[in-house]
Amino acid sequence: MATTQQDQQELSGQLPPKDTSDGEAFNRWYITAIRRSEVADYFEAVGGTMVIRPYGFSLWELMQGALDRRFKESGHKNAYFPLFVPESFLKREAKHVAGFAPEVAWVTHAGGEELQERLALRPTSETLFGHFYSKWIQSWRDLPMLLNQWCNIVRWEKRTVFFLRTTEFLWQEGHTAHRTRDEALEETMRMLDTYADFAETELALPVIRGEKSAAERFAGAESTFSIEALMPDGKALQSGTSHFLGQNFANAFDINFLDKDGERKLVWTTSWGMSTRILGGMLMMHGDDSGLILPPRVAPTQVILVPIPTKSEDDEARVEGVVTVLIKQLSAKGIRAEPDWSDKRPGWKFNEWELKGVPLRIEVGPRDLQTDQVTLVRRDTRDKEKISVEGAVARTDELLLDVQAALFERARAFVVANTHTLDSYADFKDVMDAQRGFIRAYWCGSADCEQRIKDETRATIRVIPDGDADERPGQCVIDGKPAPRRAWFAQSY
Amino acid sequence: MATTQQDQQELSGQLPPKDTSDGEAFNRWYITAIRRSEVADYFEAVGGTMVIRPYGFSLWELMQGALDRRFKESGHKNAYFPLFVPESFLKREAKHVAGFAPEVAWVTHAGGEELQERLALRPTSETLFGHFYSKWIQSWRDLPMLLNQWCNIVRWEKRTVFFLRTTEFLWQEGHTAHRTRDEALEETMRMLDTYADFAETELALPVIRGEKSAAERFAGAESTFSIEALMPDGKALQSGTSHFLGQNFANAFDINFLDKDGERKLVWTTSWGMSTRILGGMLMMHGDDSGLILPPRVAPTQVILVPIPTKSEDDEARVEGVVTVLIKQLSAKGIRAEPDWSDKRPGWKFNEWELKGVPLRIEVGPRDLQTDQVTLVRRDTRDKEKISVEGAVARTDELLLDVQAALFERARAFVVANTHTLDSYADFKDVMDAQRGFIRAYWCGSADCEQRIKDETRATIRVIPDGDADERPGQCVIDGKPAPRRAWFAQSY
Repeated sequence: MATTQQDQQELSGQLPPKDTSDGEAFNRWYITAIRRSEVADYFEAVGGTMVIRPYGFSLWELMQGALDRRFKESGHKNAYFPLFVPESFLKREAKHVAGFAPEVAWVTHAGGEELQERLALRPTSETLFGHFYSKWIQSWRDLPMLLNQWCNIVRWEKRTVFFLRTTEFLWQEGHTAHRTRDEALEETMRMLDTYADFAETELALPVIRGEKSAAERFAGAESTFSIEALMPDGKALQSGTSHFLGQNFANAFDINFLDKDGERKLVWTTSWGMSTRILGGMLMMHGDDSGLILPPRVAPTQVILVPIPTKSEDDEARVEGVVTVLIKQLSAKGIRAEPDWSDKRPGWKFNEWELKGVPLRIEVGPRDLQTDQVTLVRRDTRDKEKISVEGAVARTDELLLDVQAALFERARAFVVANTHTLDSYADFKDVMDAQRGFIRAYWCGSADCEQRIKDETRATIRVIPDGDADERPGQCVIDGKPAPRRAWFAQSY
Repeated sequence: MATTQQDQQELSGQLPPKDTSDGEAFNRWYITAIRRSEVADYFEAVGGTMVIRPYGFSLWELMQGALDRRFKESGHKNAYFPLFVPESFLKREAKHVAGFAPEVAWVTHAGGEELQERLALRPTSETLFGHFYSKWIQSWRDLPMLLNQWCNIVRWEKRTVFFLRTTEFLWQEGHTAHRTRDEALEETMRMLDTYADFAETELALPVIRGEKSAAERFAGAESTFSIEALMPDGKALQSGTSHFLGQNFANAFDINFLDKDGERKLVWTTSWGMSTRILGGMLMMHGDDSGLILPPRVAPTQVILVPIPTKSEDDEARVEGVVTVLIKQLSAKGIRAEPDWSDKRPGWKFNEWELKGVPLRIEVGPRDLQTDQVTLVRRDTRDKEKISVEGAVARTDELLLDVQAALFERARAFVVANTHTLDSYADFKDVMDAQRGFIRAYWCGSADCEQRIKDETRATIRVIPDGDADERPGQCVIDGKPAPRRAWFAQSY
């Protein structure tokens, strides 16, 4: 991916502005912000792969923690299944293999020999869980089985972009088996809601949620639900999916159990996944011309303390003392605070930590300390305020909550401003030609109408939400046929 | 691996005794205990792979947490590097590729096409870290670079056994780069000590530590150090390694930096790894004829509360109340306690939780409650004691510490009893023919003597420890030549 010339462009000089009106410029901003902030780097030697650097990985660890806590609270347990999926396993569910085979990476040789059967690197693990569930589940007492795993996934993609689409990525995949159809459906919706809550609460990323059309369904699912975020360039980002698999995999892998009534029955299964993709979406959404802006709840460093140099030794000791005390007090309150003692100039430090998106900066300088004050600077608004040393910790706590809420509000306002409720296909095309965004339009349910919209506007149905109670049926934006409700359309990543 | 017949043998009936005198019987105990306790299961479809089930994975999560905390406290940061190692990368360090190529699994096709260069699934990641370090390290200010990653590793092994040797396994690999040789050596020893501390403190697994001979060195290292545990059958288990890589990888990947003196120099690197293997070693060491015995510090459930059924409704309410209160109090103290409310008989529950190795059981029954008491039962000694309900939490806390210490003491006594300090090769052979264990014997340093011992006794040098201050030079057990100190020999997994 990266050439020396690219490296020079991306790693030195001014950060390109976040120009969302020009796809190429916007992409340049995104890539450059990620590389410079040391969130991630290319791995040129294997197209479409990347390395997540410590700063990016700390972010991912905090996201993992917040999601994993939610999974465990709802009774899920973690496990680890093999990386290798024998080709014969993939083929057990016809639609599943048709959907995934084109993207598979195959191991053909190992231990100095050619393998008798080639092995797929898991593009997803429904088949493996299916295999083991058929062994482990015998009775209704074994149900529900609620497992999750955190692992790497391989899907050989042609066009890749940091986090949003890479040949290898990290994710979690939940796989559950249930006694009844209703229980499985309930689980499918519970996890969709868990994803939405996680995205909005932790990442300050507002999402819409709902069901996918048949064309966009997971290969092997009976129905697929997703959460979708809207990116600053007006494209949607599918950020988490939850699948009701019906009895498709139960059939393919013969996962049956002895029910309370003494009869053998097939289980009902679900699967749901969220990946490092949403990390990219979060960075893309909140950042600005100066770099990243991280939501406090997942920021590895929530507060950076910058000591302002002084020529007086007394003042220097005073500054050092206050920084040290504040770090201690902030840490005791569970706030992730760090001092920057490096010998760089304050201006350089301000830029650097703004680039990295640290939500709050505390400047500790001799002038402020004359009146026992320090200066607090928000990353999102750049608002500055002076506060007494004594009151700094409490105010920091408040401001972190404020920044989190403000990022969500700003993103929400953006979604609202860029959601178009339309009834004319001419307007539909105009919007997709210009500012894009979400379009809410009536759709009759026909695959032909869906395909025509995709061909002519590159917009696809992102979700069909549960109808609002006050929503009335209308007419399809393409063929005028009756449509029960509006679907949400957008171009997408 | 598993046939239906094997499944029947391993999953029903009496657990085979832990007979350490017979290799096959011992192996049967180990496999059966792991499968029945639901720690792990075979994946027959891909030889040598396994699935870590929720109970086993909780154990691994607790181990990970304890190790990761130590890494972070010593300034290391986590990252994530790609799974794929291009063949040309592996070849950059000649000894490295020679050592690992025979075990590599190769991806040759992906995305529907044959790849131009085949890709190894990482057998270890020195080459990848080397590649990126050469990009990221420019100045002495960038040093030391102290990274770690938790990931899956693939090494195509012929003979495999749960955890101890599998084609895919989970591990952490630390990779660090330093300004000076001394700093890199210091890091190598620091991480060796970290591993030893982790094994002994958390897993109650006593280990010896020291340097490997040239024959046992990591492919590409200047020197390799390891910790070695002694298993109940008298075989050693290499449980963690720390490598001083000198400038071998710095040379191969041109990792250079501008030093304080204005000169460009090569860095010095280390790597160190610990895997799910040590989880297996811990289970193998502590278990008994009734199943696993888990050290309290890493036991997913430290205390199981078993309510004893009664026919009186009043008594039942009393039992339920006490169990609920105890769970609440234990949890508040940070003790991982769970009730078993299932409708199984108490005897069945006792067996089940003993099989799973839960360190402590609290029986809450109507008879004890007449005198406001409950019964505490230790898993390791099976000692029973009655204690007042009021005193139960404090006593539980004490007993968990006792169990942890007792497991370590028992294992330590075993190592001491099975460590033979010998000067005659005839005795050496006798020990290796019979009870095995560690042998401390003088070795002159010659590869020929080492090879002869290996050929004739299957024992290898496990480590050469730093000489004790009071240790005198002696004569090689094979050729009688001068030997500076005793090496530790054993047969190994």
